Amino acid sequence: MAHWIAVDWGTTSLRAWRIGEDGQIIDHRASDRGMNGLEPSQFEPSLISLVDDWLMPDTPTHAIACGMVGARQGWTEAEYAAVPCSPSQAKPTRAPVTDPRLKVTILPGVSQTKPNADVMRGEETQISGYLTQHPHFDGVICLPGTHTKWVHVSAGEIISFQTTMTGELFALLSNHSVLRHSLTGQGWDDTAFAEGMASCLARPANMASHLFSIRAEGLLSDQSANVARARLSGMLIGTELAATKPYWLGQHVVLIGASELSQLYATALSAQGITHETANVTEMTLAGLAAAYLSLNGHRT
Amino acid sequence: MAHWIAVDWGTTSLRAWRIGEDGQIIDHRASDRGMNGLEPSQFEPSLISLVDDWLMPDTPTHAIACGMVGARQGWTEAEYAAVPCSPSQAKPTRAPVTDPRLKVTILPGVSQTKPNADVMRGEETQISGYLTQHPHFDGVICLPGTHTKWVHVSAGEIISFQTTMTGELFALLSNHSVLRHSLTGQGWDDTAFAEGMASCLARPANMASHLFSIRAEGLLSDQSANVARARLSGMLIGTELAATKPYWLGQHVVLIGASELSQLYATALSAQGITHETANVTEMTLAGLAAAYLSLNGHRT
Repeated sequence: MAHWIAVDWGTTSLRAWRIGEDGQIIDHRASDRGMNGLEPSQFEPSLISLVDDWLMPDTPTHAIACGMVGARQGWTEAEYAAVPCSPSQAKPTRAPVTDPRLKVTILPGVSQTKPNADVMRGEETQISGYLTQHPHFDGVICLPGTHTKWVHVSAGEIISFQTTMTGELFALLSNHSVLRHSLTGQGWDDTAFAEGMASCLARPANMASHLFSIRAEGLLSDQSANVARARLSGMLIGTELAATKPYWLGQHVVLIGASELSQLYATALSAQGITHETANVTEMTLAGLAAAYLSLNGHRT
Repeated sequence: MAHWIAVDWGTTSLRAWRIGEDGQIIDHRASDRGMNGLEPSQFEPSLISLVDDWLMPDTPTHAIACGMVGARQGWTEAEYAAVPCSPSQAKPTRAPVTDPRLKVTILPGVSQTKPNADVMRGEETQISGYLTQHPHFDGVICLPGTHTKWVHVSAGEIISFQTTMTGELFALLSNHSVLRHSLTGQGWDDTAFAEGMASCLARPANMASHLFSIRAEGLLSDQSANVARARLSGMLIGTELAATKPYWLGQHVVLIGASELSQLYATALSAQGITHETANVTEMTLAGLAAAYLSLNGHRT
């Protein structure tokens, strides 16, 4: 029964899929034991507690993991591959395990030193998954998230990439800053998003000069929380698009990320006349992990 | 014994000064009972517990307060005066008190609806204090802080102003974001500050594209925390200066704020060839509160 376990282990969550002999998904489980809350010695028990009954008594089952589990503060550090590189070519790292039923491989991230120092962990596996389905792809992939990545891909390699902290800034500002008083709820306003986005894309300094006015509008004119929330999101994505113009201008963009967030990027790009398509982020992660499993085990199921 | 109490009551702290008959400071106390942690009913006991022995049994002592104590979430809301206005002309608000030994007046903040909605509470009193010492001042005052204010003053009035969240963004990013791992300690690097500032002043979108590289440099090249910290500060102040250029370009700037932070603004402005002078923020607050006391009590001591 040759099966393996696909693992996506990020900063705040752990997800595992039991993959069958023919590559089919047999089961799927998730926990909130993300890398952030774990000491190195806690990774193995965290994984085993999630997948214990998937393991066999006699043969080690191979788990292939991507994401922040390979960070310096993770299970064990998986060294970065430096650009230009294939998203799947680099040497994976074996994680130390004590349970004989388990064998764990952590996929490396990708690093860049010029023009800006940058790193990714996990997104390279999604890109690898996309490339298994589009082997001749040449262009730009945007992976929206807490830290959004913009990636130039050519001839099967990551040529350069750019991280922005848009998602994390939105979370910090809406949960921890003075703006939180004006950003209650989860509502939305399309016009406010479009206006905030256009303003900061045209003039990124507006990010600094218009941020506090979200709070002031709430105090002076009872601006709704929906408008405030959408406006902040638009301002942040507009500033990001101003910063990443060399990536998207004149390009067709592939979006791989959570669907709601990807939709915001799609809206913003459409407003600039940029065509785009979306790929399902979980499918891409699984395709990338499967490609790594096949490459490591030297056969196709 | 005609004396009164000067009160600067901000978001995170409460400071009180006992002022004597001739305007001299007799005593000074501070507590961490800022507006943020208090219900409306807790303001009076918080103030009394700080100044109880300054009060007289028979006559109410007048306390004049400025700052967030007058916010909607404060002791009682002190309505804003709208620009253009004198920083000290608006009608102050009496706070409800039960102790007959106390009479409390809260000074109003200042609001603006165009070009951006904006508000201030507390800074108007510092500006008022500056104007008592420089009654013919015409120009630009910058008040660095958690929320830095840039203010156009002419003919004794606040004409327009602009808030930036630079200080709060620095605190959020260095304490709560992924950058915190790279920003340990309190060290500094002048060159990194200057470079970060110049980069984002010239191209504010660099704020979005270079932010994560602070983390990546820490991972890839062991960039020191001092360099990272100064660079982040420079990037944020550079972005702010790009956004507030209409205020400072070609002007002489008066800086009123905490001395360390004001020094960073002074350094950044000097690099742009902008002359500036600094005024002590506590002295300006006390001068502004004294001007309000004298105006309310119709005489000069």
